[in-house]
Amino acid sequence: MKKIKAIFFDIDDTLYDSSLQSDFARRNAFRAMVEAGLDIDEKAGIEVLQNTVKEFGSNYEYHFNEVLKKFGYDSNPRIIAAGIVAYHTTKIAYLVPFPDTIPTLLRLRDSGYKLGVITDGRAVKQWEKLIRLGLQHFFDAVVISEDIKSQKPYTAIFKQALKKVGCSAGEALMVGDRIDKDISGAKKAGMTTVQILGGKYTNQCPENSYEEPDYVIKKLSDIFYVLKVRKQ
Amino acid sequence: MKKIKAIFFDIDDTLYDSSLQSDFARRNAFRAMVEAGLDIDEKAGIEVLQNTVKEFGSNYEYHFNEVLKKFGYDSNPRIIAAGIVAYHTTKIAYLVPFPDTIPTLLRLRDSGYKLGVITDGRAVKQWEKLIRLGLQHFFDAVVISEDIKSQKPYTAIFKQALKKVGCSAGEALMVGDRIDKDISGAKKAGMTTVQILGGKYTNQCPENSYEEPDYVIKKLSDIFYVLKVRKQ
Repeated sequence: MKKIKAIFFDIDDTLYDSSLQSDFARRNAFRAMVEAGLDIDEKAGIEVLQNTVKEFGSNYEYHFNEVLKKFGYDSNPRIIAAGIVAYHTTKIAYLVPFPDTIPTLLRLRDSGYKLGVITDGRAVKQWEKLIRLGLQHFFDAVVISEDIKSQKPYTAIFKQALKKVGCSAGEALMVGDRIDKDISGAKKAGMTTVQILGGKYTNQCPENSYEEPDYVIKKLSDIFYVLKVRKQ
Repeated sequence: MKKIKAIFFDIDDTLYDSSLQSDFARRNAFRAMVEAGLDIDEKAGIEVLQNTVKEFGSNYEYHFNEVLKKFGYDSNPRIIAAGIVAYHTTKIAYLVPFPDTIPTLLRLRDSGYKLGVITDGRAVKQWEKLIRLGLQHFFDAVVISEDIKSQKPYTAIFKQALKKVGCSAGEALMVGDRIDKDISGAKKAGMTTVQILGGKYTNQCPENSYEEPDYVIKKLSDIFYVLKVRKQ
């Protein structure tokens, strides 16, 4: 078994609490829209919003317009603007690292590990997250699906990241929350996999042994136990 | 001469200092992009950005990409994200009313005037400004060009605003910073016009007597002098 030289991380629900952020952003957006004149039950509204995000994807720009339409409202720029302002203000307020994220990354760097990010999404949007999280200077490689035109769980994105830090798959750990994206893909690429629990994908089950994570941790700093336990 | 019953306002450089906001947002965006690795002189960069905004319009989404292109850089999501984060953070920090905006609006309401906003732009974006300024509840009418498919200086937008508050043009004041938009259009619609100085259009000159403002003020609260001086 080769010695681990590089550790790669997903962003959402791995380096920061994106599930909490999304929940609160949606809730505050609805409250602001109700304050602006929308007469919709909060719980029902949030449910419709969640389905709209699933239906149109998270990068679609008109989620709130769709929600209003689904409840039979005409488009109302005042109500939509109230939702957008509350949504973005909350998103930014909660775009902070987990309490142990920065100490863990620093300690891993001090120990000589190469660090990287492997993430799906739009390149500018993912960099915006790293910048607001204050993490933009921590990584030797940041590989984003839009840039390389391949996404998790396909192995191309993992291989690109390994190439960038100059390590083989056997020398790398992948830490992420999603079985179907992070764990499945990294295992296929030959990396050792660590699933981090706590976000909305916590109860996702492996569909076959190939998706079984090598290790499961509850918080990012548990990575040190993984590095200790694993025969090096 | 009829008694003034309604007062209408433009938003940018009338209710808040949008020229200062834009200047600082561009400057901070450039500094952040330089910090992220861009090797461009700040002054030259800001000038190119200003020209890009003129060329593509203020609602275009890829100003920073265009700037990088013009300086011979490949698209770089990390640098662009750094610019966007700094730009938006600064924009929001400076999205505050002039010190006399809220006191003036309150006193005008207390005196029984109907208040309105007449503004060009995207409806959701203009409402976002009013909401972040904390002014969304102050007005009897908010008329935005996108909603009514006509913009300043055409008279339709002014007539729509008058209809909404139930006043004739002779009973209304229009306060704005732009001769070619606010003053020219409101005069054509038959309203009494007040130009407010201080923003980037301060040195704009009327092209004919039809564009000459009836009154010129230096700050919003000077509106009370106008109301006093004008024969009622």
